[in-house]
Formats: sequence, C-alpha cells, structure tokens
Amino acid sequence: MQPRTTIYLDYAATSPLWPEARAAMAPYLDDRFANASSVYAAAREARKAVEEAREIVAAAVGARPDEVVFTSGGTEADNIALQGVAVRARNEGRDGIVVSAIEHHAVLDTARWLGKNGFRVTEVPVDTGGVLDVDALAGAVDRKTAVVSVMYANNEVGTIQPVGRCAEIARAAGARFHTDAVQALPWLALDSADADLIALAAHKVGGPKGVGALVVRRGVGVEPLVHGGGQERGLRSGTYNVAGIVGFGAAVQSTIAAREQLVPRVRALRDRLQDALLRRFPGVTVNGARAERLPNNVNVCIAGIESEPLLLLLDAAGIAASSGSACQSGAAEASHVLTAMGVPKERALGALRLTLGRDTTEADVETAVDEIAAGVKRLRR
Amino acid sequence: MQPRTTIYLDYAATSPLWPEARAAMAPYLDDRFANASSVYAAAREARKAVEEAREIVAAAVGARPDEVVFTSGGTEADNIALQGVAVRARNEGRDGIVVSAIEHHAVLDTARWLGKNGFRVTEVPVDTGGVLDVDALAGAVDRKTAVVSVMYANNEVGTIQPVGRCAEIARAAGARFHTDAVQALPWLALDSADADLIALAAHKVGGPKGVGALVVRRGVGVEPLVHGGGQERGLRSGTYNVAGIVGFGAAVQSTIAAREQLVPRVRALRDRLQDALLRRFPGVTVNGARAERLPNNVNVCIAGIESEPLLLLLDAAGIAASSGSACQSGAAEASHVLTAMGVPKERALGALRLTLGRDTTEADVETAVDEIAAGVKRLRR
Repeated sequence: MQPRTTIYLDYAATSPLWPEARAAMAPYLDDRFANASSVYAAAREARKAVEEAREIVAAAVGARPDEVVFTSGGTEADNIALQGVAVRARNEGRDGIVVSAIEHHAVLDTARWLGKNGFRVTEVPVDTGGVLDVDALAGAVDRKTAVVSVMYANNEVGTIQPVGRCAEIARAAGARFHTDAVQALPWLALDSADADLIALAAHKVGGPKGVGALVVRRGVGVEPLVHGGGQERGLRSGTYNVAGIVGFGAAVQSTIAAREQLVPRVRALRDRLQDALLRRFPGVTVNGARAERLPNNVNVCIAGIESEPLLLLLDAAGIAASSGSACQSGAAEASHVLTAMGVPKERALGALRLTLGRDTTEADVETAVDEIAAGVKRLRR
Repeated sequence: MQPRTTIYLDYAATSPLWPEARAAMAPYLDDRFANASSVYAAAREARKAVEEAREIVAAAVGARPDEVVFTSGGTEADNIALQGVAVRARNEGRDGIVVSAIEHHAVLDTARWLGKNGFRVTEVPVDTGGVLDVDALAGAVDRKTAVVSVMYANNEVGTIQPVGRCAEIARAAGARFHTDAVQALPWLALDSADADLIALAAHKVGGPKGVGALVVRRGVGVEPLVHGGGQERGLRSGTYNVAGIVGFGAAVQSTIAAREQLVPRVRALRDRLQDALLRRFPGVTVNGARAERLPNNVNVCIAGIESEPLLLLLDAAGIAASSGSACQSGAAEASHVLTAMGVPKERALGALRLTLGRDTTEADVETAVDEIAAGVKRLRR
C-alpha cells in the first residue's frame, strides 16, 4: 500500500483546487458544455463566462481584459512570450535573448532552444542570495536584444527579483521585457506596467491544471505559436477550455480577496518552520535567506543530508515536500538555481523545499519539523 | 432573457462531458491534486492515473502508450505535428508541405504560416463529394516533401478521407503522414498503422475541453513546440493536466465500448433527419452525400436561405446548430470546405450543419425538422 499524503508542503509545485474554483467550474463540466465560439444561447453564455474570467485575471495584474491571452498553462505562456517576441524581433535585426540564470525551465530551455536556432542567449548571474545582478543584466542588454526575461519570484528559493529595474533596462534598449509571475501571483500584488509580457498559471493559485495566461501589453507584437481557429485574437487558437478558464478566474478572485490576510499568516508559519529547522539542526543553511522572499517558501540545505532519502522518509510519514522544481524531480543533478547562487554541488543535492499555502496549519508545521528531525537523525546514523 | 438550448445538434463543435468522464475526473479536482511530476505518494498516484489514461488512448488507435503525447487539445496536436516535423525535415533538405484543401484551420493555417516561413505549401483539391483527389495528392508529393496532412474525416461535411492511400503516397516519397482524427475518433475505428502522426481531442469524444493528444509513431522525429520541464519525454512540457487527461481516458474508454451499438443508432437518426429535410424542402442539397460520411453528420444547403438568420431562429427555438466550424463562426465568409467542393458562394452561405451524438433522441430530430421548416417558411416569406 502506498503511504497517504496528509501534510502538504509543496504549494510551489501545485495548489489544491480551491472549493470555490471547483464550484465555479462545475456547471461548465455539466450542462454548460457548449463551445464558446459557437453562436447559440448556450455558447454565448459560455463565452460570457470566459470573458468574465478574463476581466478578473486582467484586474489582478492591472491589465486590460484585451491584454489577457488564455493558454494551457504557465509553460506555454512563457514559450509564446519568448518565441513569439523573438521571431518578430528578428525581422527588425534583433537577435539577443537575455534571461536570468535562475529562470524556470519553461523560460531557460526555451531560450536555449532559441540559442540553437540563431539567437544569442545570455544567462545573467545572480548573487549568493539568489537575486539577479542588475549591473550584469545592464551589461548584457544591447540595441540588438529582442527580449529580456526575468522571473518575478523564483520557484525554488522564492527570491523576489528586481523586475521593475530589469524592465527599465530592457525598454531603454528597445527590447521587450517578459516576466514569469507564476509563483508570484498567489502572494504579491503585480502591476502589468512592470512588464511587456507576464506569464501566469492557474494551478499555482488555487485554479485547475491545464490553464494559464499570457498578459501581453497592448502594442507588443507577438507571433502566435499555435495556429488555427483564431481564438484569443489569433494569438492562441484552440477550443476554449471554458471550465478551466472559469476556474482560473474564480481562483484568482478568491486569492486576491484573501491575500492581505493570508500573507502575514503564512509568513508567520513559514518563519516558525524556518526557525525550528535552524534551531534543531546546527548544519542548516536557508537558501535565499538574505533576499526578499515569497512568504510561503523555505529552501534549506542540511549538512550531510541528501534530498532523496530524506524526501522518501518524509513521504513515508505522509509529508509532501520537494527538492526543488517538480518538473525536474527525479533528475540527479544539482538545482541550476542553487548552482547559480554558488551553493556547492554536494550541498545543493541536499536541498529541501517546503512551500506553504492557504490550508497549512500550525500543526502541519510542527509535525513536519518533527518528521524532518526524525529523518535527519535516521540518515545521520 | 436568453433562450435556453434544449436540443443540441452540434456534437461536431463539442460534446457534452460524459458523466463517467466527469466522475473519473472528480477526485483529481478534489483531494488528488498533486503535481504528477513530484515524488511523493499522492504525486505517484496522479502519475499512475495519467499513465492509465495514456494506455486507453493508445489502445483506442492501436498505438503503444509511449507513442501518445498529451497536449492541450487537437489544435495544439496538429501544430506540433506540422511544425515539429517540418522543422526537423528542413535539416534534411525537405521543404514541402502538402495538405488537403478541406483541412481544419488548425492544419490549414499552420501550413500557411509555414508557407510564409520558407516552406512550399500545396493544398490538394477535393471532388464535389468532398473527398480528396488522390491522384492530385500523388502529383503534389515529391522527394522534397516533409509532411503530408489529410484529415481522417471532415469536420463540416463529415466525409471520410482515403488516409490509407495518402499515407502510402507520403511514405513512398519518404515524407511523414499526419492525420487530424479529431472528428473521426468518436465514430470510426482508427489504426495508428495508417499514419505517422494522429491528432485527437478529448472534448469531441465526451471528454473535457483543454486536453488532446498527438500520437507519434516510434522513430518519427518531432521538434517540440513548447519547451520546459521536459514532460512527455520532452515533446510537450508543462504541468500534467491530470484531471483533464483522466477525463479524456475515461471518455475514450466509454466511447470505444459504446461505439458498435451507437453508430447504427445515430446513423439511423441522421438518415431520418436527412430524409425529412430532403422531403420537406425541394431546394435542399446534402453536402458530401455521395461520399462515405461520419454517421452523425448532415450538412445541407437550402435554396434561398442564409445560415445566419436560420440559426438565429433555431436558437430562439432552443436548437443548437451551426453553419460549419465553430472556430470560424461569425465569419461572413463562405466555408473553405464547401468552396473546395465547388459549392457556389451564395449556396455555401446557406449551409446548415447538424451533428448528432450519444444523447440525441428521435424527438430531438423531429422537433428540429419542424423548427427548421418553420424557420425556412418564415425566412422565405
């Protein structure tokens, strides 16, 4: 029999679907099934629901509804942003792509793929605190740069990046600025004025998997990645995922409404967790500790401990945690984020990421600390 | 107040979500929310559910599970097939793309986009019955053809295409053969041996919107469109839409199990509908009537009647129907499919597509015929 997950500390990998999002989706998984591009009453109702969700998502980042392009998730949004801008910019003689070294693979691998296809790619370093080196970015951006992509907050260590300054640097050179705000949306107030393009994902914010959005500032030219029926003003063809989009809207609405109260509560729990880890294990370091971080993230390395066996022990105790990005789990490589922060490989292979969320309780945190302590004790034996 | 849709005759646009698919999805929209790429118990359970759905989808087309790549829908699957094969083939000096003139826009517009980006695109004509001219295809394919794409069955007129012969022609020239089987899957037994790549969509077969698959025969090289976490063996990155994929699998399973009994029942209802239309309106022509067609499709032109006002009257009577592809609704252009079949523009602008499905009843058909008669009478006045 498989162990049951009873304490979920992996909100950065995915969030539970909020009951209010599930409730909002339900009619569209039931009798409101019409294709939102059709012409009859049921279809117009479905389309109206899509447009209401669009208004919510737009408002959450201070954008206009017609600046929101629904996608199948954050990864697709990042790909449209980078590829779509790069392809257009090449026609204007711009072939440079500048990204931070700690981007999610959706950005990093897309940039590297473009690098194999005629673009110059620069990966800008971060400091040991996990924050982008803005001077290095300024040095990497030139009049031939097509797009600069720096995430709003990092998915592994939670460090918040200086996107406002990055945007200024990009714009001064006539380049577009994209930010992956997938991890930031649940916790931070975003302002679309800070970027030309913003990638969002529903399932990190209490919405369903398989939906996301790319916010594209009016006037920013983007070549579509997926061609077809012409949905989303031709920027992203494909039958509307009505239930998914409605769930995304409801989750965003609920998140924005709860954020002010939720952030201090989650931050206090996170600090309690972090303090307990620091207190109980002398060999613990908190990655990104010096930087401003998302309130729900703690990423630690425990001296002499490897992630994999510790995660297995935690799993057996019903605790869901991670060593870093879910997308890269299973890989025996050190995290590219920690490596960029100068964490030595042997320490990086011991990273433990605990990310909290709306349903995390004090008891969860205390049990987790006890189980981590038990696991570490066992592994050190 | 908006009219209510009570009789749904637009299954080609989208299907209701089968209750069994909705039931299968429910746990993954509830407590089984884990990211299927994570390492703990709940994540492994989610991944297992994804792999079970993959086995079902693979079996439905006679493919191996590792040949199924889950996507966000049929449109994305078509785009990966065409772009992904074309980009790879260009490295081998192949720059030709050959498609039928009646492809869905997901194929046609992707081909045309590639045509603007250095590829030679040939659109092969169909006969007046809506069936591909195989000789013309043979003449269009050469040793520099990268990919041939011919849909399994047309979405507007339901005509079944000679994909086996198309595949032979493509393969004899060393080109890849792709087929968009989105409309065929609910009704026809598909054999993956007939194609190198097959596009499928969940929501046409009783599954949820926002999910589909591309079946890629082993050994067929495809460049990914979306880069990132490396899911789907690197062919389609992005967090698994677990609930969607599970719903897709359940819908396919249910459809395959019911198909043998459903096809004759739906065909009889369709024939009844078609006969009634032919009997009651002397000026009716059935588009694609001479060809082998999907059992649920009837597409007619009624002399002197335009689609739009008729659809409005039907809508007011609670009947959901269409003039053609949902993706193109609202466009005041004649259907490219009917145009390719030689239907004059003024007749093509009067097309009425009625597509039946699992829940269609005899009473639905009779009411629809009466309402169409009433609408035509009113419009002719």
